[in-house]
Amino acid sequence: MSLALAPTPKPKKLNILGATGSIGRSTEAVIAGAPGRFEVGAVASGRDAKNLARVAKVLGARFAAIADEAAYAELKAELSGSGIECAAGPKALAQAAVTPADLVVGAIAGAAGVIPTYAAVEAGLDVALANKECLVCAGEAFMRNARRKGVKILPMDSEHNAIFQALGGEPIENVETMWLTASGGPFRAWSAEQIAAATPEQALAHPNWAMGPKVTIDSASLMNKGLELIEALHIFAIPAEKLDVVVHPQSIVHGMVSFADGAVTAGMANPDMKAPIAHCLAWPERVATSVRRLDLATIGTLTFEKPDLDRFPALRVAMAALRAGGVMPTVLNAANEIMVAAFLKKQIGFNDIARQVEAVCEDYARKNSTKAPADVEEALAVDHIVRETSLGRLRGLGG
Amino acid sequence: MSLALAPTPKPKKLNILGATGSIGRSTEAVIAGAPGRFEVGAVASGRDAKNLARVAKVLGARFAAIADEAAYAELKAELSGSGIECAAGPKALAQAAVTPADLVVGAIAGAAGVIPTYAAVEAGLDVALANKECLVCAGEAFMRNARRKGVKILPMDSEHNAIFQALGGEPIENVETMWLTASGGPFRAWSAEQIAAATPEQALAHPNWAMGPKVTIDSASLMNKGLELIEALHIFAIPAEKLDVVVHPQSIVHGMVSFADGAVTAGMANPDMKAPIAHCLAWPERVATSVRRLDLATIGTLTFEKPDLDRFPALRVAMAALRAGGVMPTVLNAANEIMVAAFLKKQIGFNDIARQVEAVCEDYARKNSTKAPADVEEALAVDHIVRETSLGRLRGLGG
Repeated sequence: MSLALAPTPKPKKLNILGATGSIGRSTEAVIAGAPGRFEVGAVASGRDAKNLARVAKVLGARFAAIADEAAYAELKAELSGSGIECAAGPKALAQAAVTPADLVVGAIAGAAGVIPTYAAVEAGLDVALANKECLVCAGEAFMRNARRKGVKILPMDSEHNAIFQALGGEPIENVETMWLTASGGPFRAWSAEQIAAATPEQALAHPNWAMGPKVTIDSASLMNKGLELIEALHIFAIPAEKLDVVVHPQSIVHGMVSFADGAVTAGMANPDMKAPIAHCLAWPERVATSVRRLDLATIGTLTFEKPDLDRFPALRVAMAALRAGGVMPTVLNAANEIMVAAFLKKQIGFNDIARQVEAVCEDYARKNSTKAPADVEEALAVDHIVRETSLGRLRGLGG
Repeated sequence: MSLALAPTPKPKKLNILGATGSIGRSTEAVIAGAPGRFEVGAVASGRDAKNLARVAKVLGARFAAIADEAAYAELKAELSGSGIECAAGPKALAQAAVTPADLVVGAIAGAAGVIPTYAAVEAGLDVALANKECLVCAGEAFMRNARRKGVKILPMDSEHNAIFQALGGEPIENVETMWLTASGGPFRAWSAEQIAAATPEQALAHPNWAMGPKVTIDSASLMNKGLELIEALHIFAIPAEKLDVVVHPQSIVHGMVSFADGAVTAGMANPDMKAPIAHCLAWPERVATSVRRLDLATIGTLTFEKPDLDRFPALRVAMAALRAGGVMPTVLNAANEIMVAAFLKKQIGFNDIARQVEAVCEDYARKNSTKAPADVEEALAVDHIVRETSLGRLRGLGG
């Protein structure tokens, strides 16, 4: 321990996959707030050409890739005269992913993010991971390849990032229990009857975090926490039986680990994605952000409670898939995507999400091998099949 | 991250200075609970020959040293036939300290613990430190020598140990704020008038921890937290202005550090000294203990508040000494020892502790150099002088 100032590290080269979404915007803010610390090589996004061109120019990227080929003309026009190259389609996304860099931010949402993020891993580039599907849909194959390539996967989710910080480099075998906290969502204090009658509008009113509709519904059902347990299992290589959830409505403590001697370390922050993003971007250094500093004396009270698996059966269903392992998390995740979309379209009720996901999982396990997909491509194929099955099931319900 | 089990480390060799006190008894319990993990070379204590002989036999020590020469005959008789060597007096304590070992537990309380603990440092042995005076009385010289010898000083206090765990090896320059928590003691919710009239019996009723009378009074006045800030400054080499205190009545979160990106990591445990002791003994490994596991869902609520420096002026006085640095922490600590003893003997009131300590500090600074003591011997000489001055002051008050 010394008081000498560490030398300023040279700029870290980044590629940002998913530069125009919620994580992308926070990443942009972190980079803008730390002049000289980062250099951006490539940026990529799905279909928002105007914002992709804007962020490419603001961050001084040299290449911009857009997934939607129909948006290419607009992107090219927006970048005209900037000297920034651009391209469109799946190959362009892969090209953005493998542009030489120190770290690739993997923040393209959904199954669409798996292939480009995986391309970065295959190219031997470290990844700051915000895409859930790489782990919940294809976790075993994804992490096996990351280990084989010797690349680091840094968790950008607030819960996993908090746990990564709480671990402080301690070997995972030393961990007795790993807790993810859950805010409990908007229905935490609702009765089972009220939850059963919940509308999409009510489920979209999350108390602490501003997120997209899919993940907000998952937060209301606690499915989100189940998916995060699956992510934790893969990213930390920790057995399912050591993973647990505690409800913590203030969303200040994001994750904790306990050890055999009775000690517990916790990762905390005000709920602001810039904190975990900055941690990943700068790791193992730190970078200053504008994140509001935590002042526990002003916050005053932190509360904790056990999750209620009766009122929130989605967490029970997800924990069953977590413990079953193999292909079941892939099936769970695909079925949940379809059922959440159906709930948002008011085709099914809130409790039907967990009920139908469970039915799809049971049905799949009866009819198919439950072995883990051999590779990422097979995981995505299962994902596709289960989505089709789930849609068929909805049609059978008259949805 | 791998699931492979770490190989069982070979037994770590320990010397235990202060084997019969509160920390010594908890250390014994940790060692007894981890068969094959530790070997004890030497044990030492002040005057409790019977218990020293008992612990030497239970832990299989080869040498037992007692400070009080009058207790030598009893110790020898108690150890008769055990094959355990013994000796008495200051040289015997130093001999116990420098017996070849991987780690020396420095848990002799008070100024009496400084010389033997320092002897271990001079011999190049790592120290698990529970003695406060090494840092509050002689911090600069003690840590300078530890750095020169390349020895590790592992903090055994629950607060500093929690911070050590929360740091997770992160460079201290990355820390924005370091918080020690304070239970607030038995007078946390009392009015200033009630506190002024507090009796020793009331001050000795600590809500969370069972400790000796001196430290329990210090907990009631919050002087203890001020002394711990001084310890933290030295052990972590962190500037005074980055140190802060937050009151947390449940004593679950023991310490926290925040970083420039807005992240905070915290060290937690049920209040049981076996947790930080086990962490120090086994570090960088872990060892299982019987410490009750933390269950935040059952605890339910954690609260935090700012310390009230008007009702608890001892913390204000200690923070002034912390910021002044130099010799002032040495003076503060010596004056406080005498004033607490006077309060316990009902010679002065509760508020007189802080008032008289402040007066002794101001008086000392007016009449003497405020430079840090050049070495541990000089620090102990200042300690002695200030105790005499403080006793004189009490006589002047008619105490």
